[in-house]
Amino acid sequence: MFLNNYWYCAALPHEVGTKPLRRVICNEPVVLYRDIQGNPVALEDRCSHRQAPLSTGDVRGNNIQCVYHGFVFDDAGKCVHIPHQGNIPSRAHIRAYPAEEKWGFVWIWRGDAKKADASKISHLPWTTDAKRSPVYVYFHVKANHQLVADNLLDISHADYLHSNTLGSKSGIMGGPQPDKVEFRTWQEKDEIHSFRKLTNVEVASFPKKWGNFTCNVDRTNIQMWEAPNTVHVHLEFENHENKILINHDHIMTPETETTSHYFMDFTRNFGIDGDQYPTDEDIYHEQHSVISGDDLPMVEAQQENINLCKGVVDVPVKADKLISAVHRHLADMYLAQDIIVPTYVLVRR
Amino acid sequence: MFLNNYWYCAALPHEVGTKPLRRVICNEPVVLYRDIQGNPVALEDRCSHRQAPLSTGDVRGNNIQCVYHGFVFDDAGKCVHIPHQGNIPSRAHIRAYPAEEKWGFVWIWRGDAKKADASKISHLPWTTDAKRSPVYVYFHVKANHQLVADNLLDISHADYLHSNTLGSKSGIMGGPQPDKVEFRTWQEKDEIHSFRKLTNVEVASFPKKWGNFTCNVDRTNIQMWEAPNTVHVHLEFENHENKILINHDHIMTPETETTSHYFMDFTRNFGIDGDQYPTDEDIYHEQHSVISGDDLPMVEAQQENINLCKGVVDVPVKADKLISAVHRHLADMYLAQDIIVPTYVLVRR
Amino acid sequence: MFLNNYWYCAALPHEVGTKPLRRVICNEPVVLYRDIQGNPVALEDRCSHRQAPLSTGDVRGNNIQCVYHGFVFDDAGKCVHIPHQGNIPSRAHIRAYPAEEKWGFVWIWRGDAKKADASKISHLPWTTDAKRSPVYVYFHVKANHQLVADNLLDISHADYLHSNTLGSKSGIMGGPQPDKVEFRTWQEKDEIHSFRKLTNVEVASFPKKWGNFTCNVDRTNIQMWEAPNTVHVHLEFENHENKILINHDHIMTPETETTSHYFMDFTRNFGIDGDQYPTDEDIYHEQHSVISGDDLPMVEAQQENINLCKGVVDVPVKADKLISAVHRHLADMYLAQDIIVPTYVLVRR
Repeated sequence: MFLNNYWYCAALPHEVGTKPLRRVICNEPVVLYRDIQGNPVALEDRCSHRQAPLSTGDVRGNNIQCVYHGFVFDDAGKCVHIPHQGNIPSRAHIRAYPAEEKWGFVWIWRGDAKKADASKISHLPWTTDAKRSPVYVYFHVKANHQLVADNLLDISHADYLHSNTLGSKSGIMGGPQPDKVEFRTWQEKDEIHSFRKLTNVEVASFPKKWGNFTCNVDRTNIQMWEAPNTVHVHLEFENHENKILINHDHIMTPETETTSHYFMDFTRNFGIDGDQYPTDEDIYHEQHSVISGDDLPMVEAQQENINLCKGVVDVPVKADKLISAVHRHLADMYLAQDIIVPTYVLVRR
Repeated sequence: MFLNNYWYCAALPHEVGTKPLRRVICNEPVVLYRDIQGNPVALEDRCSHRQAPLSTGDVRGNNIQCVYHGFVFDDAGKCVHIPHQGNIPSRAHIRAYPAEEKWGFVWIWRGDAKKADASKISHLPWTTDAKRSPVYVYFHVKANHQLVADNLLDISHADYLHSNTLGSKSGIMGGPQPDKVEFRTWQEKDEIHSFRKLTNVEVASFPKKWGNFTCNVDRTNIQMWEAPNTVHVHLEFENHENKILINHDHIMTPETETTSHYFMDFTRNFGIDGDQYPTDEDIYHEQHSVISGDDLPMVEAQQENINLCKGVVDVPVKADKLISAVHRHLADMYLAQDIIVPTYVLVRR
Repeated sequence: MFLNNYWYCAALPHEVGTKPLRRVICNEPVVLYRDIQGNPVALEDRCSHRQAPLSTGDVRGNNIQCVYHGFVFDDAGKCVHIPHQGNIPSRAHIRAYPAEEKWGFVWIWRGDAKKADASKISHLPWTTDAKRSPVYVYFHVKANHQLVADNLLDISHADYLHSNTLGSKSGIMGGPQPDKVEFRTWQEKDEIHSFRKLTNVEVASFPKKWGNFTCNVDRTNIQMWEAPNTVHVHLEFENHENKILINHDHIMTPETETTSHYFMDFTRNFGIDGDQYPTDEDIYHEQHSVISGDDLPMVEAQQENINLCKGVVDVPVKADKLISAVHRHLADMYLAQDIIVPTYVLVRR
């Protein structure tokens, strides 16, 4: 059902500590905690003995002890203590997931542990850029992770769903049109890229406030998708008055087939010094309100329709070049892993 | 699962306007709105592009625009606008349901649109009779639509379930019995009729108040069922003191296999002029309280038992002549449409 | 799915009266009430006519009348009255469950009624011992009944899950250990027994208060499991200061495959005369808080993990001798009744 041999974003760093965190990832219960060096540990959240969640137990140094009967597991999932018993059967060991903290997220590797290579985690260098101030948000979504990704991949929806906040008014029928629209997508190995530039377009209310724009702007939107499901967005708004830059990244991790964990960072090159608008808190609340208010109700409503109308397949259009390219690539990846291609990435070719 | 080529009641007129209404009917999402002439329009509530519900979008003249990416559909379900794209593929069109407003209800046709004939909508002329004052009620029910219909078709339950409100006391063991009971059922084409008259029977509290009766009455109950699932009830209470007439109609539309939309009108020839009891509001509250308080908890409890005890079949008795006739007819109708006969209309013959 | 020809605990006596009680037992709806002698009656909670729950009807002498259409059933499930009809078809009769009130519980027999023998109900003589004061508790549990039983059968969990209330501190790694641990299990016909004695062990807070102990105690725990799912626990805490005795019994009845009814009695030989601690109320609240606070969240969390990780099988250890013996015996019992052995009692042999 889910792609193997990828890093999946599992948590925000502040969620992981010496009090264990349970999180279901790709239909599997996972417990996350920190070892004595402060490094994240991820194990199956299931004591081999009797299926008790280890997350209700206690972290003891690098190990975790089940609260039910005192079994102890080390940070590699090895059972190292069974009360009242000397020998430990090998089938008492549980699965460990390689875990890394990087770019302000905690990631776990699902697949062959020997292949786990931290350098393959999505690159998000702007999150550590001293001239940026990253803001992080987490959402739980009652929809398949790909519906959330698709929402980000179809750049055109901003002009409709977010016409009052992030989009231009050009989406409205008969509304003002940009002088010029450039759009292209291309693939580099496992990455799908897109470039979209609107020249001399009305600026939406959020970027207007961010950049103190009073006139039209040129809006450039560069996106990149990479497996298993990260969407990078680079945004520029520019005219003779100002130029602002934003990088935000969206990492969707399946919880189940119909629910997801949605992690996001938002970095900007403006308003990061003082306590003037937009502060980190302003950005957090703006992003939270747009995504919770516009995007998530939409993807959850799509999921409801998909549940009712089994087997429906999308009708992609020209503006979906990016999304279709991603779906085609995903379909190939599922096939390569001998996993049935999910209906939601089927594309008529 | 559900019968085709019938008019299904979809909404009360005040529910349908220029703000779109989503309603799941026969397991299909439907969006209802009014065109510029004020006529009801019913479309699949599912944008062909990416399954977004159109009901979260905006009505634009006779058309509706998806809020997600701006696709526009006309009142026949034809996709007439795709942003940033000239040609519109035919598979972008969605299903339209012929829709009519009649007798105080909005109806949609499920099946072959060419066969949609508004004259085949259930006849409810008393709702437009100047000497009657129709009261309308809507209920959402957590039970199969046929359980609700059966509740109305077995006339005898009034004496038990509604012994304090609508029934006679004759249902109580050892209670006062009517002088005479007449009961017959018959079929006319696709309609199943019944006639039941109790002579000189104690009058229940509701009709007692309605007609200011102090003595026993003759109670006549004429019913007619017609497909897909309308139950017409004509009631007379009469003695030397007074005679009152009531027509009420019950139209049950499947939402899913285990939930229903239940529409009702109630018309009477008394208390319609002034503000004396019973006003329209009195009638509304009485009907609402009896149905919500007695009938719906019962059908929902039956549904729970049916869910637990898979495959149980009813044991019909003599008093079920009407219900059995309807079930037999329904079974034939399902077979004629090559639909598996649902367990709840199976009758031992 | 569930074992036949056993007495299942169905209710506490105060729950059963002339107002009918609905309780789902082994996936079947059951109605419980008392006849005119005060004896419990248990019938299918499903009128044969149209699946209405009889529990919403009225007890009339030894009989129960359906509120929907007035059908009457006697205490053997025989339909004895159908309104407006003389003959009663035999398929109108419903299932009756032999029912007995004994040891402070109401029991029903599921299986061949001819084999129902009240002497085969679990023996709980301490509940009627004049020198004991039984306290009864009922819990509804969102987990399979066997998970609740297993919780009681693995004696060792007290030292972990209940380390602050019922267990000794010896469970804690590096904690004080008893001088001696004796443990043995054995089978006598259909009963599985265990004996566990800890010599000179720190006493946990509850028994400490109960017996006013200030020093270490010897703790003896004698348990017996019998089918379908009763766990008897005999507890002794003893040192030179005092000796206290407790018998508590736990009877788990399946509601569905994933939910249970959990009945418990707790009898003691101390604090039963006056109104000093521990009164019956103290005991009730202590047991309620330990079980609701520690045990039930654990078994419900196990059930969640089992739901997620289909087909997982436990890894039993030496301390699970008793539980494994019970599972092996249960597996044989299911096979003997031609019932598929549930995954949760599969044991690697």
